[in-house]
Amino acid sequence: MKNKVVGIDVGGTTVKIGIFSDSGTLQQKWEIPTNKSDNGAHILSEIYQSLIHKGVNPLHVIGYGFGVPGPVVNNITLGCVNLGWGITDIKDIFGKYAEHSHIVVDNDANVAALGELSYGAGIGKSDLVMITLGTGIGGGIITAGKSVKGAFGAAGEIGHIVVKHGGRLCNCGTNGCLETVASASGIIHEFLTTKEELQLQSIVNENNVSARTIVDAARQGDSVSMIVIDRLAFYLGYACHIVSLATNPEMIVFGGGVSNAGEFLLDKIKQQFKQYHFSAVQNTEITKAMLGNDAGIYGAASLVIND
Amino acid sequence: MKNKVVGIDVGGTTVKIGIFSDSGTLQQKWEIPTNKSDNGAHILSEIYQSLIHKGVNPLHVIGYGFGVPGPVVNNITLGCVNLGWGITDIKDIFGKYAEHSHIVVDNDANVAALGELSYGAGIGKSDLVMITLGTGIGGGIITAGKSVKGAFGAAGEIGHIVVKHGGRLCNCGTNGCLETVASASGIIHEFLTTKEELQLQSIVNENNVSARTIVDAARQGDSVSMIVIDRLAFYLGYACHIVSLATNPEMIVFGGGVSNAGEFLLDKIKQQFKQYHFSAVQNTEITKAMLGNDAGIYGAASLVIND
Repeated sequence: MKNKVVGIDVGGTTVKIGIFSDSGTLQQKWEIPTNKSDNGAHILSEIYQSLIHKGVNPLHVIGYGFGVPGPVVNNITLGCVNLGWGITDIKDIFGKYAEHSHIVVDNDANVAALGELSYGAGIGKSDLVMITLGTGIGGGIITAGKSVKGAFGAAGEIGHIVVKHGGRLCNCGTNGCLETVASASGIIHEFLTTKEELQLQSIVNENNVSARTIVDAARQGDSVSMIVIDRLAFYLGYACHIVSLATNPEMIVFGGGVSNAGEFLLDKIKQQFKQYHFSAVQNTEITKAMLGNDAGIYGAASLVIND
Repeated sequence: MKNKVVGIDVGGTTVKIGIFSDSGTLQQKWEIPTNKSDNGAHILSEIYQSLIHKGVNPLHVIGYGFGVPGPVVNNITLGCVNLGWGITDIKDIFGKYAEHSHIVVDNDANVAALGELSYGAGIGKSDLVMITLGTGIGGGIITAGKSVKGAFGAAGEIGHIVVKHGGRLCNCGTNGCLETVASASGIIHEFLTTKEELQLQSIVNENNVSARTIVDAARQGDSVSMIVIDRLAFYLGYACHIVSLATNPEMIVFGGGVSNAGEFLLDKIKQQFKQYHFSAVQNTEITKAMLGNDAGIYGAASLVIND
């Protein structure tokens, strides 16, 4: 009897795997290291082997959902730099191991957003945007319950929207992307340059500076950190404004390490968002993600359950 | 035999009506004045009467598609200020005249975008954004062939995205929305203030200034107009950048009066868009709308045909 759904979140360091009931209850989860040798050629076979090793019977599996770190169009990823993958047809490759299976693939940021929508902060919603603040900035947009992929799988690339014209150069080649000022390294850079420019003292130890320590220092009243966090909130509030008018989500969910800094940063982002007055989107809810690192496996499972 | 589709574009001044074959060929079109008396209570009955008067047999109609100037969620408009309508269930009201009919309703900007997608500049595409430059700025976003409505029907409100922080106050209550610098009146305002600030002469007659005359003057080398149009192109290029990363359309289509100014403005917008380098969206096509004022009836018909 087919009664299990497998959610697989393929990351650059680990692959997270979850076994779910057909109604979406997580029954078992584990992770395996991502084998990036031979341009990631062994990743999919190792996922299948791991499932078998854990006692998952392929005959009981309704389907396999995958979240992968790259653009996806029609279940094919156009490339995942962090895995060594070029254009990769996961459905075709994984389908050779798990024959006659239902396989659905989406981008990891979309999948995390779907996870929060179906099982996390956004239960009951159908229009949601998730912004993940980490080493980079990920974005996933859901409208009418489905992730927006776009023509080239690049929908929801919120981290590369310019929010500071003439700002610092981003890896993408443009100056002043959201990622240059609001990613973990962007926040540290803003802190160091602001401290230097304003010649201020700070309680933050420069040898051990992180986005989290800066948020904590701002909460304690450290002047440089407060300036940096207020500016961060301005940029993130502006990003919320932009997405609220683009696809008009009912809820914007912040995930990732920086967003774990409690309500302090979130409250500041909400204040900034309120500076924009277009009435129809004033009630857009801004909140924190709930599923943490499990958002990916939940969302990957939901790809199958809601397909 | 049911073999006709009716596309209805309800505007503040006129209602445009088109009769289409079931494959989307326009067979007949006309317009009637929008009767705004009694808070627009007669608009829908007058549309039905006009159809009967023109010899349309309701028994031959597969369905009626409506584009209306306000937010729409689940076929219900939350209000159309220009028509005098509050929350209005068109399906219910019009369904009393045209019994047992298929009725589909969407926002007018979405419907125009669907028209261009199905029968105009975007034939063959499934991801498209349309930006209409007129008295205001309308936006319609299509992903995977469907218009994005959002939680409160406010998706695609591109005209209210802030592009100039601290800029002029918009009707929506926010400063520096795209509409304040790139709508017809916004362009005139930018022209007059720039001329005043820089104390420059211009070939544009201030008593007869319009967005179109400013574009024409810029093409002839008028300095103030050139400055204004370059800045306009910067703002519109930035808007294209934002939507290209939000929903990643294959094509962005400009419609409305200002966009009829030939390739001159469009080329400048394209140049500005190229300043943003995120590779996956570099090939987003930017082009002019093709259907002019008929985009609405075509799109309204496509709501029925593609439903």
